[in-house]
Amino acid sequence: MTIRIGILGYGNLGKGVECAVKHNPDMELAAVFTRRDPAGVKILTPGVKVLPVEAAVGMKDQIDVMILCGGSATDLPVQTPGFARHFNVVDSFDTHANIPQHFEAVDAAAGESGHVGIISVGWDPGMFSLNRLLAGAVLPEGRDYTFWGKGVSQGHSDAIRRIPGVKDARQYTVPVDSALASVRAGENPELTTRQKHTRDCYVVAEEGADLKRIEEEIVNMPNYFADYDTTVHFISEEELQRDHSGIPHGGFVIRSGHTGWDSEHSHVIEYSLKLDSNPEFTASVIVAYARAAYRMAAEGQKGCKTVFDVAPAYLSPMDGAELRKHLL
Amino acid sequence: MTIRIGILGYGNLGKGVECAVKHNPDMELAAVFTRRDPAGVKILTPGVKVLPVEAAVGMKDQIDVMILCGGSATDLPVQTPGFARHFNVVDSFDTHANIPQHFEAVDAAAGESGHVGIISVGWDPGMFSLNRLLAGAVLPEGRDYTFWGKGVSQGHSDAIRRIPGVKDARQYTVPVDSALASVRAGENPELTTRQKHTRDCYVVAEEGADLKRIEEEIVNMPNYFADYDTTVHFISEEELQRDHSGIPHGGFVIRSGHTGWDSEHSHVIEYSLKLDSNPEFTASVIVAYARAAYRMAAEGQKGCKTVFDVAPAYLSPMDGAELRKHLL
Repeated sequence: MTIRIGILGYGNLGKGVECAVKHNPDMELAAVFTRRDPAGVKILTPGVKVLPVEAAVGMKDQIDVMILCGGSATDLPVQTPGFARHFNVVDSFDTHANIPQHFEAVDAAAGESGHVGIISVGWDPGMFSLNRLLAGAVLPEGRDYTFWGKGVSQGHSDAIRRIPGVKDARQYTVPVDSALASVRAGENPELTTRQKHTRDCYVVAEEGADLKRIEEEIVNMPNYFADYDTTVHFISEEELQRDHSGIPHGGFVIRSGHTGWDSEHSHVIEYSLKLDSNPEFTASVIVAYARAAYRMAAEGQKGCKTVFDVAPAYLSPMDGAELRKHLL
Repeated sequence: MTIRIGILGYGNLGKGVECAVKHNPDMELAAVFTRRDPAGVKILTPGVKVLPVEAAVGMKDQIDVMILCGGSATDLPVQTPGFARHFNVVDSFDTHANIPQHFEAVDAAAGESGHVGIISVGWDPGMFSLNRLLAGAVLPEGRDYTFWGKGVSQGHSDAIRRIPGVKDARQYTVPVDSALASVRAGENPELTTRQKHTRDCYVVAEEGADLKRIEEEIVNMPNYFADYDTTVHFISEEELQRDHSGIPHGGFVIRSGHTGWDSEHSHVIEYSLKLDSNPEFTASVIVAYARAAYRMAAEGQKGCKTVFDVAPAYLSPMDGAELRKHLL
């Protein structure tokens, strides 16, 4: 029997989920739900319907796990608890400060309805969080470092686009090589924001715009750029399309720590990702956790979970005996 | 309340467990059990007793988790199921081919006695296995590579020592840089045994021994060296002591895979370890899983588990709310 997946919201992430379902033979796409006019939403999977979001609850017997692909700012705080009343759900809620509150809301809804809701799934939060936990549990006397990039930051790109005279922009977050090297060498450096990452901006200006002013506004923008060494490159619209249309990302979680009676031995644990497509990789993680949500619910578990609460075996299509034989 | 740990077997691994317990404030060492004469075994922790292995069962109410630090060849196949009849247990059983059989034996014993037994804990099997599972679940269309080293292989060092004329020896397994680079670049290479690792041997010969013959015997030894590019360095006993007395190890688990409707995007997931002390790191992983065994048993779970079956949250001393707040 295949696991029937519903997708709510068909942007980059929703499309990534659709692609990931295609690559998992134990899953099938049941339907895509949208708040737009369904007639205007073209999906990739032949024979699968695009329906208005209001039709979702009526299909609850045809969907094993609903994957919520909306944004963390306003969509998910409402949608995840709402849909957890009717479905097993997975989301990628990533507003770190509000995770405790989101967890409570989803836990109440899913606990009452008898479903499993797994929140904050992806790579950060998600696989990076998991690696921070694992490394910290194994090396309690040590220190964590997370570096992001090289990759596109949507939020920073948007911030540049809001500057008058900017037509389009792409911002890359780049980890500083010397900082990475110091951490890998187990030197436990104290690193400021500026020492960890640089920011590279590719900007298409409107004709006749004051480039000097735009650059000043970018590099001095509080919160977004002022604390970083920021480089601004003005390029043509064609160059932006040709060289910067992808959505790559990635990063590093590194923990260095000590063992031994007198802490005499050093160790470095490193987890890294190099991703051609941030949304497709995030979606692939989400789909593995959808498998876990389905299985945990089938065992009678309920309530809100995070990547910390999911035994890894639930993520794999292999059963326990196969896993022990082939992967242990 | 602290988790009371027993250690059975006080070699490098047992001593590593003792050190790891010291670094985990929620744990305490209850006793060390040995098959040697206890009077001849000096441990590091003040006030803790060394007792004969026969005294262990009588102390079962004073020990929450017994950590079995014997060898996989003959000790653990008997000890782990045996002690699982009386204790929650954790071992580092690493004979891959016999894991299914070992699992069944421990599962029967622990299931019947109502304890939790976690087997094959360490870094490989252990953290590397976990990363193979996670990466495979997230990128089903892809390929895994595991590289070991640079590190000391005890088995290969022992094999060299058995050659007539060899007084002592240390063998390092070394991953081939060009192979690592190709895998990291997502090239999905087909790699032979010889292309993945080289073997570096440091040998102390007896006076007057035929060095040429020893070298020939090493590089042509079937199973151990014949399939590798092997380098033999003859050194003095003093040099071996000075430069090769550590037990470093480490390695890399890398999965490269594709996402997208037509598999058009590439991704690379890499997990790596750089360890000053193989036994102390292994012990540190074991101790984190001992925490999990204790908690899972306290919840009424029982039977044999592996790293695949343990939800990561059980490994950390933090509770769920703290984990979500600080690490997610």
